[in-house]
Amino acid sequence: MFYQVTDLLGVVSFAISGVLAALQKKLDIFGVFIIAFVTAVGGGTIRDILLGVEPVTWLRDNVYMYTIIVTVVLALLFREKLKYLRTSLFLFDTIGIGLYTLVGVEKGIEADLSAVMCVTLGTITACFGGVVRDTLCNEIPVIFHREIYATACISGAVAYLLLRMLPVPEDITFLASIVIVISIRLLAVRFGLALPDIYKSGARGGD
Amino acid sequence: MFYQVTDLLGVVSFAISGVLAALQKKLDIFGVFIIAFVTAVGGGTIRDILLGVEPVTWLRDNVYMYTIIVTVVLALLFREKLKYLRTSLFLFDTIGIGLYTLVGVEKGIEADLSAVMCVTLGTITACFGGVVRDTLCNEIPVIFHREIYATACISGAVAYLLLRMLPVPEDITFLASIVIVISIRLLAVRFGLALPDIYKSGARGGD
Amino acid sequence: MFYQVTDLLGVVSFAISGVLAALQKKLDIFGVFIIAFVTAVGGGTIRDILLGVEPVTWLRDNVYMYTIIVTVVLALLFREKLKYLRTSLFLFDTIGIGLYTLVGVEKGIEADLSAVMCVTLGTITACFGGVVRDTLCNEIPVIFHREIYATACISGAVAYLLLRMLPVPEDITFLASIVIVISIRLLAVRFGLALPDIYKSGARGGD
Repeated sequence: MFYQVTDLLGVVSFAISGVLAALQKKLDIFGVFIIAFVTAVGGGTIRDILLGVEPVTWLRDNVYMYTIIVTVVLALLFREKLKYLRTSLFLFDTIGIGLYTLVGVEKGIEADLSAVMCVTLGTITACFGGVVRDTLCNEIPVIFHREIYATACISGAVAYLLLRMLPVPEDITFLASIVIVISIRLLAVRFGLALPDIYKSGARGGD
Repeated sequence: MFYQVTDLLGVVSFAISGVLAALQKKLDIFGVFIIAFVTAVGGGTIRDILLGVEPVTWLRDNVYMYTIIVTVVLALLFREKLKYLRTSLFLFDTIGIGLYTLVGVEKGIEADLSAVMCVTLGTITACFGGVVRDTLCNEIPVIFHREIYATACISGAVAYLLLRMLPVPEDITFLASIVIVISIRLLAVRFGLALPDIYKSGARGGD
Repeated sequence: MFYQVTDLLGVVSFAISGVLAALQKKLDIFGVFIIAFVTAVGGGTIRDILLGVEPVTWLRDNVYMYTIIVTVVLALLFREKLKYLRTSLFLFDTIGIGLYTLVGVEKGIEADLSAVMCVTLGTITACFGGVVRDTLCNEIPVIFHREIYATACISGAVAYLLLRMLPVPEDITFLASIVIVISIRLLAVRFGLALPDIYKSGARGGD
C-alpha cells in the first residue's frame, strides 16, 4: 500500500517534470502527454527491456496510463500555479527517485543479477526516464552535466544491498535507503555540491 | 493479400518520408538508407519490443528490407520528380498510418491487453517510426508540435475496437476504421485543424 | 582467448571514443561514464533486444562494466596524453569494429536468420553504439554523413558468410574477414574515399 502510493507519487512528479519540459519547447497537447509519459515510465521500460520482462509493466497495468493522463490534464489546467508547488514537486521527485531506485534494485535481485548490475538497474530505473525526455526534447540529458542525481541513486542502491545482508527488518532497510537518496540529493542541492570538476576552466557547455 | 499490399504501401511511403528528411540533412547514402529504414519499421519495432515479440518482425521477413532498399534507390534516382508525387505520397502515407494503427491494435488484442493499451500500441506503431526518424535527424519529433496525426490514429483505433464488438463483418470493420483515420487526417490538413492551442501567444518554438 | 581479448580491446577503444565525445560536450564524470558505456555496449544491446536475447549480455557478465570503469578512469587521468595515442586508438577502434561485426553475424546465424539479416545484425553491432553516443550528445550520428565505416562492416560480414561456405578453417575465415574490415577502413581513411556523393554541390550540412 505504502509502496503503491509512493510509486504513483513518483509517476506524478516525473510526469509533471515532463509537462514542464514539453511546455518550454511549446509542444502541442499530444506532445506534452508523450513527454510526460516517457519521463514517468521510460526508466522502468528500459530496465524491463534489458531484463526481458515483457510485455513491459505499464502495458499490463492501466493505472500508470490513467495516473499520467490525469496528471497532465491537471498540470495543464493549473500550470500557472505549478511554480507555487515547486518545493512539493521537488520533494515528490526526490521520493520518486528513491523509490524507483529500489524498485530497480529489487528487479535485479529477482533476476539473480550481480550486485553491481542491481545498482545499475536501480540507477537506470530512476534516471533514464529523464534521459529519454531530454533526448526527445532535443537537449543533452541534464543528468549528464548537472546535479548530483545519479550519485544519490547509486548510494541508495548500495546502502539497500548492504542493509539487506544485515539482520534488519525489511521495512527499515527500505526506508533507510530511501532516506539516504533523499538526504544526499537535498544536501547536494542545498549546499551546491557537484561531482569533482574535470574541466579546469569550470565553464560548462552543451546547453 | 489486400493486407500485405497496403502494408508494403505503408512501408514505401514511410521510407520515402525518411529519404526526404535525410536529404534535407545532407546525409550520405548509408545515412539516407538507415533513416528510411527506421522510419518505415521503427514504430512496429518499438511495439514488438514492448510486447516481447522477438526477434522483431523485420528480422524474420526479408520483404521489408528489400522493399526499403528498392524504395531508397528509386527515391534517390528520381528525387527531382518526388515533388510531383506529393499528393500520391501524402495519400500512401495516410493509408500507411491507418493500416499501421490497425496492425498495432490487433497485436495488442492478440496479447490480451486492455482496450486502452491496444489503442496505445496502434498509435505507437503508426507514429513512432517518425519519432525515431526526427530524433536521429536531431529534430524535435514533428508529431509533438504539428498536425493532427496522432489524433487520427487514436480515433481510428477506438473505432476499430468499437466496431469489432458489433455484429459487423471483419472486412467492413477494417475498412471503416482506415477510412476514419484517412478522413480525419485529410479534413485536418484541408481545413488547417489543430489541437486546442495551449499557448496564448500562438507562437511555436522548438524548430 | 584471442576472441575474448579482442572483444575487450573493442570495448576499450569504443569507451575511449565515448569519453572523447563526452569531454567535447563538457559533461560531468557521470555523463562521461554513461556515454562511454553506451558507446561500448550500445550496438550489442540493440542487437540483443531485437533478437530477444535477454537479459542483455552486459547484464550477465560484469567484465564489460569493470573494463569500461577502468578505461574511463584511465582516459580521464591521462586525457592530455590521448592525442599521442591517436594511431593506436584508431587501430583498436578498427579492430573493434571488425570483431563486433563478426560477433553480430554469428548471433544472427545462431538465431537462424537469413544471410541479409545476419549482415544487418553485424552492422548494427558495430555501428549503433556510435549512433546512440551521438544521439545522446545531441548530434546527428557521424556514420550517417562521414567516413566509409558501415561499408567496411557490411563487406566484412558478407565475406565472412561467403568464406564460411567454403572448406576453409574457421580461424582463417574469422581472421580474413576482420582483415577485410580493417583494410577497407584504413584504405578509405588513407585515400579519403567516401560513398558516392548524392549532392551536387558537395557541401555537407547537419553539423
